[in-house]
Amino acid sequence: MSLQEQLDALPGVTAQSRRDPATRGFVFNHTMLRVKDPQRSLDFYTRVLGFTLVRKRDFPDAQFSLYFLALVDDPAQIPADEPARGEWLLGRPGVLELTHNHGTENDPAFAYHHGNSEPRGFGHICVSVPDVEAACARFEQLGVPFQKRLSDGRMKDIAFIKDPDGYWVEILQPTARV
Amino acid sequence: MSLQEQLDALPGVTAQSRRDPATRGFVFNHTMLRVKDPQRSLDFYTRVLGFTLVRKRDFPDAQFSLYFLALVDDPAQIPADEPARGEWLLGRPGVLELTHNHGTENDPAFAYHHGNSEPRGFGHICVSVPDVEAACARFEQLGVPFQKRLSDGRMKDIAFIKDPDGYWVEILQPTARV
Repeated sequence: MSLQEQLDALPGVTAQSRRDPATRGFVFNHTMLRVKDPQRSLDFYTRVLGFTLVRKRDFPDAQFSLYFLALVDDPAQIPADEPARGEWLLGRPGVLELTHNHGTENDPAFAYHHGNSEPRGFGHICVSVPDVEAACARFEQLGVPFQKRLSDGRMKDIAFIKDPDGYWVEILQPTARV
Repeated sequence: MSLQEQLDALPGVTAQSRRDPATRGFVFNHTMLRVKDPQRSLDFYTRVLGFTLVRKRDFPDAQFSLYFLALVDDPAQIPADEPARGEWLLGRPGVLELTHNHGTENDPAFAYHHGNSEPRGFGHICVSVPDVEAACARFEQLGVPFQKRLSDGRMKDIAFIKDPDGYWVEILQPTARV
């Protein structure tokens, strides 16, 4: 039995051979995290991790803004204008949406919950990199806080850094044994 | 000033023109959510949303298992065997990782925190679909619980369904005006 057949036989799994054609074209487009201070979060995701800010949406009545970011090695592929830009953004996988509720950045006591203490739920996002050792050395140079260095614990091939809200960002190399 | 130049001028943003070449090849690979009952979650993500289960990792000593799922219209593109399979999985965007801590499925009182009540943080994941009306009609037929139907609230182009742990899954159509 192939590896895929073994996975497809697990309780609950609908195998691809029985996949509902109605799900064709579905794309896991984005993950949304609330952030306290967009300036700090935008700095982290664009400068430290290389994301491009592709869209900002403001909802002044409801007092919040949305920031959509994508990791794109060739920014020329991003359509310059709407509606093509939005269609590109929402039709692709790997988009990060940050929600800013206005004013939280001015409240010293305000903090979001990163999900890895009680009550738990969401765990982390992950950015894979061509060279995990080089990436982590650069994060150290930049003063990025680590939740787990490569040398910590039993899993020596993965690290976790922390974004400005304390959300965990796993760092791994696809070609490493993980 | 182009739309991209306006976004690149926001406080905190590092423009692509100043992007650190060290971030080339970075990929927003996956998002991890803890789930109470993998059988129910695998059913939801494979049958209702069309994901393929690509990898399962068991850690019997630490009493947890990891499930990696991807939305792939052509499963033949998934390498059959390791290590090519893992390299493919970890090098692409849009992967969903589900963590199961063994035994939670047998505790009637056990529940994970979906992030949209206090303490807030993580908000949702989003699956974009070719036809949001058709997708939502199918979810209704399948008995999937909704957090927000297309007809609810002011944003008529998006819906939110709930996965078995209560995590919100946004449903939208890239070509709609959102």
